[in-house]
Amino acid sequence: MERLDELHRKNYVIFQDTEKFCFGTDAVLLSSFVTMQKNANVLDLGTGNAIIPILLCARHNSGHITGLEIQKDSVVLAQKSIEKNLLEDRISIVEGDIKNVPTIFKGRKFDVVVSNPPYMKGQDINAQDAKAIARHEILCTLEDVVKAAFYVLKSAGSFFMVYRPERVVDALAVLRENKLEPKIIRFVHANVDKEPKLVLIKAVKGGKMGCNVLAPLIMYNSDGALTAEAYQIYYGEA
Amino acid sequence: MERLDELHRKNYVIFQDTEKFCFGTDAVLLSSFVTMQKNANVLDLGTGNAIIPILLCARHNSGHITGLEIQKDSVVLAQKSIEKNLLEDRISIVEGDIKNVPTIFKGRKFDVVVSNPPYMKGQDINAQDAKAIARHEILCTLEDVVKAAFYVLKSAGSFFMVYRPERVVDALAVLRENKLEPKIIRFVHANVDKEPKLVLIKAVKGGKMGCNVLAPLIMYNSDGALTAEAYQIYYGEA
Repeated sequence: MERLDELHRKNYVIFQDTEKFCFGTDAVLLSSFVTMQKNANVLDLGTGNAIIPILLCARHNSGHITGLEIQKDSVVLAQKSIEKNLLEDRISIVEGDIKNVPTIFKGRKFDVVVSNPPYMKGQDINAQDAKAIARHEILCTLEDVVKAAFYVLKSAGSFFMVYRPERVVDALAVLRENKLEPKIIRFVHANVDKEPKLVLIKAVKGGKMGCNVLAPLIMYNSDGALTAEAYQIYYGEA
Repeated sequence: MERLDELHRKNYVIFQDTEKFCFGTDAVLLSSFVTMQKNANVLDLGTGNAIIPILLCARHNSGHITGLEIQKDSVVLAQKSIEKNLLEDRISIVEGDIKNVPTIFKGRKFDVVVSNPPYMKGQDINAQDAKAIARHEILCTLEDVVKAAFYVLKSAGSFFMVYRPERVVDALAVLRENKLEPKIIRFVHANVDKEPKLVLIKAVKGGKMGCNVLAPLIMYNSDGALTAEAYQIYYGEA
């Protein structure tokens, strides 16, 4: 079922298909975690319904944002949201496979690459299911995403990703092996006394060793209300 | 200057030389983070004045704990504290180099290995300074410690270490490369809104991929008092 949701930012909206992957905390926190120079050229690997490019447009004075997406249905939804938000000049969607990035973007380099890659191993999963494709390593693995990011980034360009803490060792290892050195790490906890649900990572192409682990991002106070920081991320001014 | 300090646990005390490395939060938190089966055989790599073995004796029904230390002066201090605490039956100190572990412990295997390894790069440091040796990679690197731990651990044995967050990527990478898979990670923050000062890591020899990042350990409330958990670690019953 198709549905139009508000994003609480600049009146932007998004078309979502409730039978497919719908955006969640991942996309909101990743777009808030991203930092970039004004007019930076940005690529979102596995953009889905373009939720991350749209949120980035709301938050940043980005240059052009390109979203790469392999699933035809998602590309159609993404286009619809981009037109509805009058963002055709700022976002474009390319239909294609992350593994073909060297061909698709031959000769093009980006300042910033972002991704919310699949984080579950892909065995025994229905490969026709769009939700499964977004979450599981069916059509691409974390390593495919990281290799693609390395390929299209300028030297010293930044890669931002959101991932699951139980695979943080894999993420950090794959990033370093592929010369994207992890520089900033932040864990996201529902409550201060709970294990983290997400981890946000910034890596720099050719960066020096040595990273900065930030204070934890806590989403809820003990009374169940959003913390001041989480409220700011969801509803605050960009 | 030599000094006798209380440990707030079972009336144990420790002799420290204020011109050398004195124990701190690192040792207290590491000994609290360690888990072990009753009667586990334990090795502490770079034991210094034996603070970690003594704290482990206070907290755990460990079997025998061996401390390996390269600095003669520290070995003498360690022996003095062990005798003062009547722990000669539970702790023994071996003078030797972590890099010679395969020779020193030929044929011996341990259930648990712990270490508070040096965490600063060793360039341009006075190699005669005992404080510097404890903190900098002069006489051994993190990789030397991890290789030694792998060598002396039984299959599926546990390695516990405390380290600095700015080098957590190095630590996780070196552990995995040496077949000690990181399984539990905990960051320690002075306050909830501050970056972590320490990271505690448990790795398992030959363990499967997939790790558990715990809730942050917060040391102080906003009023400056120890949190309930930190108080328990410092002064609570074992």
